[in-house]
This record gives sequence, C-alpha cells and structure tokens, in this order.
Amino acid sequence: MSKKNYLFHGDFVTARPEPGELTVYENAYALVRDGVLEEITLIKPSVGDDVIEVDWKGKLIIPAFSDVHLHAVQYVTTGLGYDKELLPWLTDYTFPEEARFAGRDYAARVFADLVYDLWSCGTLHSSIFSSINTDATVLLAEKLVGAGLSAYVGKVNMDRNGGIDLEETTEESIRETLRYLDLMAPFESSGVKPILTPRFAPSCTPELMRWLGDLSVKRKLPVQSHANENLDEIEWVKSLFPDSRDYMSVYHDFDLLPERGTVMAHCIYNTDEELEMMRERDILVAHCPASNANIASGIMPSTYMIDKGIRIGLGSDIGGGNRLFMGYHMSSAMKHSRLRWALTDRSSRIISFAEAFWMGTFAGGSFFGKTGALIPDYSFDALVIDDGRLSRYRPLDVLERLQRFIFVGDDRDIVARYRGGEFLPEPNVMVK
Amino acid sequence: MSKKNYLFHGDFVTARPEPGELTVYENAYALVRDGVLEEITLIKPSVGDDVIEVDWKGKLIIPAFSDVHLHAVQYVTTGLGYDKELLPWLTDYTFPEEARFAGRDYAARVFADLVYDLWSCGTLHSSIFSSINTDATVLLAEKLVGAGLSAYVGKVNMDRNGGIDLEETTEESIRETLRYLDLMAPFESSGVKPILTPRFAPSCTPELMRWLGDLSVKRKLPVQSHANENLDEIEWVKSLFPDSRDYMSVYHDFDLLPERGTVMAHCIYNTDEELEMMRERDILVAHCPASNANIASGIMPSTYMIDKGIRIGLGSDIGGGNRLFMGYHMSSAMKHSRLRWALTDRSSRIISFAEAFWMGTFAGGSFFGKTGALIPDYSFDALVIDDGRLSRYRPLDVLERLQRFIFVGDDRDIVARYRGGEFLPEPNVMVK
Repeated sequence: MSKKNYLFHGDFVTARPEPGELTVYENAYALVRDGVLEEITLIKPSVGDDVIEVDWKGKLIIPAFSDVHLHAVQYVTTGLGYDKELLPWLTDYTFPEEARFAGRDYAARVFADLVYDLWSCGTLHSSIFSSINTDATVLLAEKLVGAGLSAYVGKVNMDRNGGIDLEETTEESIRETLRYLDLMAPFESSGVKPILTPRFAPSCTPELMRWLGDLSVKRKLPVQSHANENLDEIEWVKSLFPDSRDYMSVYHDFDLLPERGTVMAHCIYNTDEELEMMRERDILVAHCPASNANIASGIMPSTYMIDKGIRIGLGSDIGGGNRLFMGYHMSSAMKHSRLRWALTDRSSRIISFAEAFWMGTFAGGSFFGKTGALIPDYSFDALVIDDGRLSRYRPLDVLERLQRFIFVGDDRDIVARYRGGEFLPEPNVMVK
Repeated sequence: MSKKNYLFHGDFVTARPEPGELTVYENAYALVRDGVLEEITLIKPSVGDDVIEVDWKGKLIIPAFSDVHLHAVQYVTTGLGYDKELLPWLTDYTFPEEARFAGRDYAARVFADLVYDLWSCGTLHSSIFSSINTDATVLLAEKLVGAGLSAYVGKVNMDRNGGIDLEETTEESIRETLRYLDLMAPFESSGVKPILTPRFAPSCTPELMRWLGDLSVKRKLPVQSHANENLDEIEWVKSLFPDSRDYMSVYHDFDLLPERGTVMAHCIYNTDEELEMMRERDILVAHCPASNANIASGIMPSTYMIDKGIRIGLGSDIGGGNRLFMGYHMSSAMKHSRLRWALTDRSSRIISFAEAFWMGTFAGGSFFGKTGALIPDYSFDALVIDDGRLSRYRPLDVLERLQRFIFVGDDRDIVARYRGGEFLPEPNVMVK
C-alpha cells in the first residue's frame, strides 16, 4: 500500500536531538510526505491535491512514546510482590509466571491485552523481553505487527538459575534462538524485529554468552539485557564472572555490546569505567524509575549520565514497573531525580521536564530509526492529545498543557495515533 | 430521610486499627443497618424484609479513601512548575493562581470539577485547604455537600508573605474567619465541617496565630497546617519565630495543636522532640509522597514514625502532588520508603503494602469519625471495584487483586461508592 501525503493542523511540541530543549509550534501545520515529516510551518502552506488535510486544531500533537524496556510475560503479575527485592521477587513471582507462557492460549490472551494497551497508551515503539518460549515470542511479534506497532521482541536466553520450569539447556537455547530468528524474518518489513536477549549475566553460562556474542557480530543483531540494578545482583555477577572487570565488562568480554545496537536496562550502580564504555559504544540505557523504586533497587544518577553524553531512554519495566503510560515514567524520572538530589547530593543537578520528555520520546525513539521527534526527515510517528478536560479553566500555554497531560493525564486523553503518517486504528483484540 | 438497611455481597478487604494487617472476607456478606456495618459473615445471614440485598458478587469491596491534605485552589496548576522547589514554586505558580479564586465564576468551575473528580476517585473524605477567600471556601463546601462527600474545608489564614494579591490584614483575617465559621454552620450535619487553616507558620503573624489558637481552644475547632517540608522553609521559620524550640513548637506555643484534632502535612524533617509531640497529641500526619518528590522536598521516614506510634494518613497535596487517585499515593508511599531505604539506611524497615493501604483508608479516615475500615460499628463508607480487566487471565487471590487495583488500576475501575450505607450517585457538575 503506497503511503499518502498529509497536512496536519494542531499545536505541536517536540524534543530535539539535544536534551533539555523543547520546541513548540502553536496553531501550526505539519506537511508529511510518504510517512516522513517535511516541515512544520506557522503559516498554512499551499499544497496540491495529493495532500490530505487533517485538522486537529486546538489539540496537542507530540512524538509517539518509546518504551525501551518491558517484559511482556510479566503483564499479569504487574503490581504484585513489591514487598520484595529483585532476587526473591524474581524467584517467587516472576519466574513461575513466565513459565506459564509455554501454553499458547495463555500467551495469546495476555499478549492481546498488552498490545492493545501499548497502542492505547501511545507507545508505538518498544523493546520487549518475551520468555524463553520461542512460539510465545513469535506470537507476540504477530500481535504487534497486527496492531501496526514497531518493536524489538526478544526470545529470552536462560540456561541457568531459572528454576525447574524456566530453564533451557545451552543446546536448546542455541537451537531455539536460531528457530526464533527464522520465524521472525517475515515481520522485518513491518518494523517488528528480533533482538538477542540474554536475560542477565547470571542467567547465561559463559558458553551461551560466547555463542550469542558471536551471533550478534556475525548477523549484526542488536542486544538487550540488564545491568547494575541491585547491589546483591552485582555481587552475584562478580562471583559468577571473576575474570571480568565489572558487570558491563561481562557483556563486553562476550561481544554483547554492539555499538549503537544495545539496550541496557537499569544501570543504577555504575563505575566511571562502565559509564565510559556506555558512552563510547553509544549504548541506549533504559532508565526504569518506577521499577527501581518498587523493588527497592535505587535511583539511577540520570543527570550525571546525561551530562557524560550517555543516551537514556525510559522503560516501564513491566512487571517491576507498574504502569505502561510513559507519562508516568517521565514524571517518575523527574521525581526520583529530585529525591536523589534531596537525599544524597544537593550540589547535583536535577533533570528538567524537557529532559524527561526527551528520554521518553527522542532518546528512546533513536533505537527504532529516525523517529521520536517532530523534525524534518523523521518518520511522522505522533500522538494527538485532547487535553480539553485538563485545560478548560483558563488559557494555558502549550508547554503547560503538555506538562498537565504528562503529570495528570493518561491514555484517555490520547485521541489518535499515527505511525509513518498513517492513522493507527484500534487493534482487534479477539484471540484466535 | 431515614437510612435503610442493606446486605452487601462481594469480596471484602479492609485494614484494621493496627497498621500492617489486612483482613479478607471472600465471597462474603456485609450487613449494614442505619449506615453502620453490623457484621461481615461468610455464610449468608437470614435477614428480614427490612434489609435490601445488594449483589456485588466477584467484585472487590474496600473502605473509601481519605485524602487528608489537598489544596482545592491549586487544582488548575497541578502538574505545573515542578522544575522548582517549594518556596519559588509557591510565589511563581501557586499564590498567583490562588488569587484568582476571588472570582466566583472561576471558583465555581474549578470546584465543580474537583468535587466530581474526588467522587470519581473514591475519595469520600478529605481535609482541604481553600484560599483566603471566604465566599470561595463556602462555595466549595456547598459543592461537597451536594456530592454527598464528607470533608473538612478550611479558609486559609495568611496575613503576611503572600504577595500583593494574596494577603489579608490581621483584622481582615479575623473578621473573615468568623464570617466563614458562621456560613459553614448549616453544613455540619452533612459532614462538611470547618477547620482552622493557618497556611503555615511563615504566612501568619504571631498576633493572628494567637487569635486562631484561642479560637480553636474556645470553640473546640480542629486545625490543619504544614510543617517540616523543606530545609529552607525550616530555616525561615526559625528566623521568624526565634523563641520557639522548633517548627512544631511554633504551633504548640500558640495552642494550634488540638489533641486528636490536628492534621499536619509533610513532617519530613522532624526532631525526636517533635515526633514525641505528634504522638503525645495524637496528631494526624499527612504524608504526601508525590508532592514531596515533585518539588524536591525529600522522603518522610514513614516506618520510623509508624513504629513510634504516630498516626499517618496520605495526602494527594494537589497541586504539589499531581494526581487525586489515592492508589497513586499508596504506591508512591511504598516506592519512596524503598528509595529511602536504598539511598540512606539499609538497616531501616520499608513499609508494606498493608501499611500503605492502612494510611490511605483507616488512618486517614480516623480524622472523620468511625470510618476507613470495614469493621463492626463503623460507618459503611465503601468502594466497589470491578477489577475484571486486571484479573481475567488466571485466578488471583483477593489481596493480589487489591494490589493490582492500587498499582495498575485507577478511577475507571471504581463502579460504586457508598457513604453511610447509601449509594452515592454521580455528582451534578453543572455550574449554576
């Protein structure tokens, strides 16, 4: 289906490649050709008959959200077990739940809801952990394609420390990873792609890590994993990989940090050498503030890392994090930065609203191609916000309206979603 | 109108007077006579024709929420200005907005929405700051009465440091307080009552504080205010009241801490002497975690205070806090307790889910009479939660369903609200 051309009218706000700066175009016009933004102008341009006009006058139009770290198979247990820390939470709640996804019916029901809710929340791009089960992973990819969403979907690799029901042998893990890559190939053109997903260093033997690293290099495959989330976890990694300098080096030593092709979740407790490694390889850090609070992990030093030039997106980290709406995570990132300042170092810098919005749109979006900002030459992936219920009392400026949507609003306020310029209809959630 | 008797059927969960313990009655029956809970039984009791059966089988039934600290006149600016700390946030955003409530039309529109949203979120009890404007304050009380909600509503006293548009003379403040008390008298039977509201120590001259303290003693009036929210604020109070031992003592020295009749918001940075004063006078502390993060105040040591026997409710602190839904504040209280643990003292105790739920129901409710728990002899003030969308995947137990509602759900899941046994219909938000 060939793309159409559109002229959108509304109040636009966008982050830019540099954090800390938002641009507003009030009562403006965005010309989109073949799915790509050509320009935004304050004066209505004269366009030909090949351009369809779409009038969202008085509505906010913002870049679509990107959620760069979540676990699809924890959607049911989201909100449960937050009386525990990471490691007992994993063994008591998370691993037993993930084992249920060996059953196709269960997986189909949960994934249908998750994909619907991602759409509903305006999260048009996401980097997702599935389970070790290949068929469930492919089913999730199918549902994302069906909804028109873009995503990386990872079959989890886990050949140790998963418990009886959630472990593969190394040989199974290798065989299933290759099968998963074959089954994912047909989705590539739709924007749903595979990503190598060693769960975290303690879940994978060195043999499996070596094989995955070689595969990443050979096939130029991206990688997602976890690092430096919890102090006990870091000690555990040290004892499992005594030859690696630190946690990040474990992945590096196995060639699992492809340049500009890695999402690393959490990264709370980093050495300066690890930060330098992140910057140098242009790793996308998935900052997951809600999860890091729920299971008592800590607060990532976001401004310190931004100021070092590290790219930071936001992750809902469902089910460690408890809500999908990325506005919740932008506001959580701001709150936690302020708490870190108040509790540990009042000479440090707190993140601004503009930086939090940048994380959840531009920075996260950068993992999915030219998206995440309403700037020329970028894919027009956008949300239309009817903030009428939040701004009817007196005139607010466009930036104030955006702040109210992020802090006070939710998915109810999103009235349209566009990907590559095309309207994304409500997904069909009927389970086949 | 005489009360009716009811037999409610559903899955009940309640906090109890002691924090840390929730009780579940699954598939049970609650007998309510004249608005008061008589008993909850697992076997359906035989009742006479005078009892109406209400079937909420399969739905959660929980105590109504209490929000013990919010500013009605900051509803419009909620979500704005969180790039600032308390004192500049007050002068740049909050005070100019509050001055707008001198206009009756503006006040009527905002309060109609606020009261509707309190109802929608299941907050049936609240302790509210209005503005210095008496007429706006009475208008707010009228709207609460109209919606069938219970509340304390305070005309704010502020005879210094409010800026040009938001200050009374001492004489005006006294005169208007008396007028407000007269105008509030007719509402008393409906459960909407006056509360003396010196904004915070820096806003009131010693002369006004003295007069308010005498009035509280003479007329047995409750008091609400702020204390120990921010380090700069505490220094300021020290310089304004050099003769008082500490911040809480300022209120104490002016007889503004009536026993069991005081709500004190924030209380983050307390001395042990202040904590002892809170316990000894049975002050209700309004813990406002969302607000305390948004404007970079800090984290109240909730478990330390609970373990000292201090009564702690939850406050949305609209507009420093950004959402009305009390589930948001229960989860924020849990998160922040975990962050405090992780960042400052890993030998401390973190609050449990049961304690957070206790704060937002039983402890907060204790300020409004015998409410906040589904226990015999307490007013049946309850919410019915249809958690179907959150629990349809596989059987979850009742406590897990409650956790999911609090962490993942919102006002959309509340399908009925009862106060004193009676169904509360949707408020009429038409502005007269």
